Amino acid sequence: MRKEVLKEPIFAKEIAEIIKVSPSIEEMREQLRDYHENDIAQSFEFLNRAERNLLYSALDAKWMAEIIAYIDNPSEYIEEIGIDKLAEIINEMDADDAVDLWEDIDESVKVKLRPMIDDETKTDIRLINSYDEDEIGSLITTNYICIRQNLTIRQAMHELIRQAGENDNITTIYVVDEKGCFCGAIDLKDLIIARENEELDSLISYAYTYLLDREKISDSIEKIKDYAEDSLPVLSKNKKIIGIITAQDVVEAVDDEMGEDYAKLAGLSAEEDLNETTKESMKKRLPWLVILLFLGMGVSTVVGAFEGVVAVLPVVICFQSLILDMAGNVGTQSLAVTIRVLMDENLSGKDKLQLLFKEMKVGFCNGALLGIMALVCLGIYIALFKGYSFESAFLISGCVGISLLVAIIISSLVGTLVPILFHKIKVDPAVASGPLITTVNDLVAVVTYYGLAWILLIQMLKIV
Amino acid sequence: MRKEVLKEPIFAKEIAEIIKVSPSIEEMREQLRDYHENDIAQSFEFLNRAERNLLYSALDAKWMAEIIAYIDNPSEYIEEIGIDKLAEIINEMDADDAVDLWEDIDESVKVKLRPMIDDETKTDIRLINSYDEDEIGSLITTNYICIRQNLTIRQAMHELIRQAGENDNITTIYVVDEKGCFCGAIDLKDLIIARENEELDSLISYAYTYLLDREKISDSIEKIKDYAEDSLPVLSKNKKIIGIITAQDVVEAVDDEMGEDYAKLAGLSAEEDLNETTKESMKKRLPWLVILLFLGMGVSTVVGAFEGVVAVLPVVICFQSLILDMAGNVGTQSLAVTIRVLMDENLSGKDKLQLLFKEMKVGFCNGALLGIMALVCLGIYIALFKGYSFESAFLISGCVGISLLVAIIISSLVGTLVPILFHKIKVDPAVASGPLITTVNDLVAVVTYYGLAWILLIQMLKIV
Repeated sequence: MRKEVLKEPIFAKEIAEIIKVSPSIEEMREQLRDYHENDIAQSFEFLNRAERNLLYSALDAKWMAEIIAYIDNPSEYIEEIGIDKLAEIINEMDADDAVDLWEDIDESVKVKLRPMIDDETKTDIRLINSYDEDEIGSLITTNYICIRQNLTIRQAMHELIRQAGENDNITTIYVVDEKGCFCGAIDLKDLIIARENEELDSLISYAYTYLLDREKISDSIEKIKDYAEDSLPVLSKNKKIIGIITAQDVVEAVDDEMGEDYAKLAGLSAEEDLNETTKESMKKRLPWLVILLFLGMGVSTVVGAFEGVVAVLPVVICFQSLILDMAGNVGTQSLAVTIRVLMDENLSGKDKLQLLFKEMKVGFCNGALLGIMALVCLGIYIALFKGYSFESAFLISGCVGISLLVAIIISSLVGTLVPILFHKIKVDPAVASGPLITTVNDLVAVVTYYGLAWILLIQMLKIV
Repeated sequence: MRKEVLKEPIFAKEIAEIIKVSPSIEEMREQLRDYHENDIAQSFEFLNRAERNLLYSALDAKWMAEIIAYIDNPSEYIEEIGIDKLAEIINEMDADDAVDLWEDIDESVKVKLRPMIDDETKTDIRLINSYDEDEIGSLITTNYICIRQNLTIRQAMHELIRQAGENDNITTIYVVDEKGCFCGAIDLKDLIIARENEELDSLISYAYTYLLDREKISDSIEKIKDYAEDSLPVLSKNKKIIGIITAQDVVEAVDDEMGEDYAKLAGLSAEEDLNETTKESMKKRLPWLVILLFLGMGVSTVVGAFEGVVAVLPVVICFQSLILDMAGNVGTQSLAVTIRVLMDENLSGKDKLQLLFKEMKVGFCNGALLGIMALVCLGIYIALFKGYSFESAFLISGCVGISLLVAIIISSLVGTLVPILFHKIKVDPAVASGPLITTVNDLVAVVTYYGLAWILLIQMLKIV
């Protein structure tokens, strides 16, 4: 959480200094070659506009393209770059980065840019834009090495060196057959250490995992994670390579997927960031809130049935919020655990029963402990501050304790069962479970507590 | 969520089939060479013990080492592998994988294994185990290529080929000076396309980002993410390379960090999985619950102050849970948004004010909408089912509506302010904020609602 430490942009500041003091463009370029593109990108904010302009003109389009791919919000800098240079930069960019950048450009600038973008880049941008945000195809880059199956080792090495000038994802070399269909992959390491008289064929993994362009990202995220060390090819239905997914894309995809889960647990329909409009934020938050409002009204009518208890023994209302809050928290804990377990693994029926059993056991133990704490503390409190006899006080706090125990066990059960059921009927449990669990838990807790108070305190013991 | 689709282990089943039907070991080995180690690992569950034993003996230790690194719970298979082979496998494994595997081995087996593990592996395991779980050092692998600064291009290429037999993370080649201290890195692509007469020096990035072994993972996660495409070197205090972090490690680290945030939002002190004992689970869940229990008791004493209101006008208790639940949900939404914003970016004071303002605006709009809905629906409900006159009914539901609006605005404010304050005083806001926000929101909601009911309905309008 101490982000100040980590974000200390030492290299970025060094770079800014180099740009400020370099006697010549040539010198500056030479020195900057020692730095990672990401660090040069981070240095932009330490430069003024004139200094940045100097940088834009000093670096060639390919270099600039790599740098700009690392900038989070490039729009402010795009405007500073001349239109000719900008077109060159876009032509040099990886397809997926070009698509991201293109979105940040003003329509007025786009009009001028379009004639200057080369056909290959245009095709790539059109390709990636043809996929939905949640499809694998939207993540691809076309920056990869691809060779024919029937080459010799020497020819393959040659082809690699030729293509490596343009494409820098070289760790895995993809292989296509004579029809141009994907047929396997070669680990660069194997090619490098191979002897010239070996057969290329022996280096090719013919059963290499691939993704389909129209697959949903959320469906494939576990698979992608497993293969994260290597890039993965993305194929069209007819087995042609459309592009690849690199480690960087995997990290982003994992980050996004987890972010979505996180948002859903908090009752947001999608992740939000700082720059969103109020309307967008409302759209993400209201659905859950409206559903909860109406479910909450349902709970209210049930509470209404116990008006009689409260009228006779008003002290009981003190502890309603306590029991409901605790039930809610326990339910959320079980929900969170269950959702992660459901996501990460393919559970058998037996596993699910085991999970359910474990949650109830944890619920029982936690509930018993918390119930006893409540019984003791509240008993003393009611006796001392509410003017009840010690006997009545402990009867009331006993009611609270037992209700806590029951509510916590049921909440654990509901918090586990509901997501499992939603998962079974193919409804996203992270979205649907929250409101239902809250409502069921509230109902159970209210009925247990007031019911117990009614029967035990008012009907049987008549402590009023 | 439809994990069935994605987990379809086509290749794993193919592999199992090959192992079952292969006429000879040689043939089987030849065919398996086409498959990714991860797929072979996944095939284990489709084999019986005899078939797996066949596989263990057919594949050499290096291959087995790569396969076992992909198995999630290797303990059941470890027992099946003979002790000699197991020792060979461990000696061939990447250091970080060896550490993970070592943890799964029974102490009785470890005793026999220890004399058979070679010194290099022992040193690596000891090194990684010397770091805390949350330190960068615990993530490293020692599988990387490292060359001297003063080589020629040809020598460097030679050295690469020599080391690539042992180490397969070759995309970035690390460079050390004559003292053995890290001084830079070479992109493999640049080495491959370089001409023999170039200077190696011109290929070296001398200002290459590194991590320190004792850095906290959570502090560096954003930085690591930014450089995810490449591996990052991990240095000791005296600038020696201890190991590297690969893309796979980055994905795991991001996954873990996000999992922690997710768990914390749900009031768990750490992420849980299916195989934990009840005691471990309780330890992760109880702290938050106990804190909440006592905070909840505090709220109870405040509710107690309004016993008088309830005694006179019992209908008001019906809607307490509604208002508290809504306030709680809105607070959680604001909390989740704020924590993500705090984590992702370095906020200036102005940004924080902007965030606060935005949250309050969203709160006001949502609150107004929900308040009006509650007013109308509950007014009709109270009049029809609770036997109040329409005038009184809408006065009561008006109280609920206004309280909802106030509670939601305050919850948005509290849900944003509290994590910002905790972040400021360097306390992890994801852990500390939850209980405090719930409590403050409950208090505000209860006081607003019963206070309003008391003043408006009982004192001023005397609707009872």
